[in-house]
Amino acid sequence: MNVNEVKFEKDNKLACEIASFTNFDCVLDSGYKLQDFKIAFKTFGKLNQNKSNAILVCHALTGDQFVLEKNPITNKNGWWSEMVGPEKPIDTNKYFVICSNVLGGCIGSTGPKEINNKTNNIYGLTFPVVTIKDMVKVQKYLIDALKIDKLFSIAGGSMGAMQVLQWVIDYPDKILNAIHIAGALKHSTQNIAFHEVGRQAIMSDAAWSEGNYIRHNKVPEKGLSVARMIAHITYLSDDAMHRKFGRKLQSRDIISFGFEADFQIESYLRYQGRSFVERFDANSYLYLTRAMDYFDIVKDFSNCIEFPSSSNTHINYLIISFTSDWLFPTIENKEIVKKLNFFNRNVSFVEIETDKGHDSFLLDEPELDLTIKGFLEANL
Amino acid sequence: MNVNEVKFEKDNKLACEIASFTNFDCVLDSGYKLQDFKIAFKTFGKLNQNKSNAILVCHALTGDQFVLEKNPITNKNGWWSEMVGPEKPIDTNKYFVICSNVLGGCIGSTGPKEINNKTNNIYGLTFPVVTIKDMVKVQKYLIDALKIDKLFSIAGGSMGAMQVLQWVIDYPDKILNAIHIAGALKHSTQNIAFHEVGRQAIMSDAAWSEGNYIRHNKVPEKGLSVARMIAHITYLSDDAMHRKFGRKLQSRDIISFGFEADFQIESYLRYQGRSFVERFDANSYLYLTRAMDYFDIVKDFSNCIEFPSSSNTHINYLIISFTSDWLFPTIENKEIVKKLNFFNRNVSFVEIETDKGHDSFLLDEPELDLTIKGFLEANL
Repeated sequence: MNVNEVKFEKDNKLACEIASFTNFDCVLDSGYKLQDFKIAFKTFGKLNQNKSNAILVCHALTGDQFVLEKNPITNKNGWWSEMVGPEKPIDTNKYFVICSNVLGGCIGSTGPKEINNKTNNIYGLTFPVVTIKDMVKVQKYLIDALKIDKLFSIAGGSMGAMQVLQWVIDYPDKILNAIHIAGALKHSTQNIAFHEVGRQAIMSDAAWSEGNYIRHNKVPEKGLSVARMIAHITYLSDDAMHRKFGRKLQSRDIISFGFEADFQIESYLRYQGRSFVERFDANSYLYLTRAMDYFDIVKDFSNCIEFPSSSNTHINYLIISFTSDWLFPTIENKEIVKKLNFFNRNVSFVEIETDKGHDSFLLDEPELDLTIKGFLEANL
Repeated sequence: MNVNEVKFEKDNKLACEIASFTNFDCVLDSGYKLQDFKIAFKTFGKLNQNKSNAILVCHALTGDQFVLEKNPITNKNGWWSEMVGPEKPIDTNKYFVICSNVLGGCIGSTGPKEINNKTNNIYGLTFPVVTIKDMVKVQKYLIDALKIDKLFSIAGGSMGAMQVLQWVIDYPDKILNAIHIAGALKHSTQNIAFHEVGRQAIMSDAAWSEGNYIRHNKVPEKGLSVARMIAHITYLSDDAMHRKFGRKLQSRDIISFGFEADFQIESYLRYQGRSFVERFDANSYLYLTRAMDYFDIVKDFSNCIEFPSSSNTHINYLIISFTSDWLFPTIENKEIVKKLNFFNRNVSFVEIETDKGHDSFLLDEPELDLTIKGFLEANL
């Protein structure tokens, strides 16, 4: 790749950078050739002179490039404001943090809601199904275009953790340290099942219009909202939900004997569904859940790639799980640790005691903060 | 109640009995007065001369009166054929088994898809929201109408277990033994959450037509199917799903890079959704899930009824849970055991080791069979 072919520009509306790659020959896992694509990204902190302080943060399913500061779409704090920022564990006074919206996403990077330059139409379902490997491939192009030879670290939770593992397999020479939070070697049957129900909810919405809703000026709000509600249950733990909501009623003293949101948990989920629709594209949700379902780093489809490969011996690994995470439970994270130990790698494993479920990596978890801060400083 | 006011007739299409109650004053939990209603039921075995061998079986959310033999709607075996029948644990050579479709159900009993005699219109959402207590109230009317003074036992799993607890509180004098499988003192926050998502899926389907789909000659197939898919995931365990399906592909060697059902688990769930739509009414699903959500035997809404009450000291209790049931986990079943022990009741508790999840009570589980058989025989 000739990195000079890449054009960088600022997107004022999204308040982020856009890297436009044109006349490329980016062959995806599916065989599809992606020739033109854009990657929206943000950076935080300063790249030092010898370019040795860059950390690539990989976002989760519904995340984006707005790691910290105000997210221009939601007007809320960035999704990892707890972790990244000045004097935070991933300290932007020390590190240069890069985060890009994944390929197939809907916050500026090329995905199903963007225009296909070849046809001048919105991609919709003509967008190729992408994999975690494809997402990482374009991240690698971005890192090259930014002329960074080696990342001090990569870090990510959930779908972000899948990207971390993929980097370790595909571009080990580019990485010194890898922080993998609440992920797995492959997406589990139960997780595929939950994703499939979410996709069916979206595709069942008449407004979805076989994926052409933008052209028809519609939004499959109801289906996308139901998909989000299902997913949201899986991000929390039974205990956390019980602690937070229990059987408490919403704005009433007694049950209504009806189908309004009597219980607080019902109102909460409906709110989660509604607010998600305002910020996320339904087709993008189909594509990104599919990418997660296809993730199987050990088997990697028909090939037999063993994890880890022989070329990533130098990497220091940190694997983190949460006791109450039932989506990516400790047992699945430990499978990675076992493999790394088997291959005699430098691996630290921390299981954090919390009742907050899978979403713990996004929340205020002092032990998580200390673990990541310590790992990075020890490897500086 | 004057039991002579009840009319019994045979429903040839449903191959079951219908008890029609007219000019009643059945006041429901909501305050609604149900004057005319029908209860569809089946009996198996023979009532002995002193009427001491009757067992009332209470069905779960999507169950019905077809406990064994061929179900005329699905053409499959009755839902508890593993447990009930000649020489089965609940042996119909010995016991007289009664099972009625719950109030609010859709297999012959009065529910939202039936005609309101007052208006001659289909109830739809004008049907009153019912509770587990209401279901049990009409079951009690049925037992009275059948002139059975005391049930040798009641038995049920899941929503059936909720009915068992409600019987123990409301009509203790009518029961000698109670078999409670995979239930809880109250429906948990997470379970309410899953139900709410299912209801939203149904109500989001344009064909649902604000509950008036029958009048509009429509079926909210897609929404009901999604609701069933969500629920179905919760009935299985992560392990069982992994064992049964893993990441195996359906009818193909490699992934399709599309949104068809690539994985077997996807095909399986889609099939579960489709076949459910053929046998179940969408509004009934709303009502029955709501009844479960409202269930809280300890608090029982604004009252403060302690469980158990002082009038049910004579009952022998059997509480059963399954190790892999995450919908009604052992810890919640044990809460009942603790309460019964605290009140010095005759309670047996068995936690059955299985990876089959909540649905274990419907499946071939030799330890479950032996436990129930033994409990019944010991108390004969």
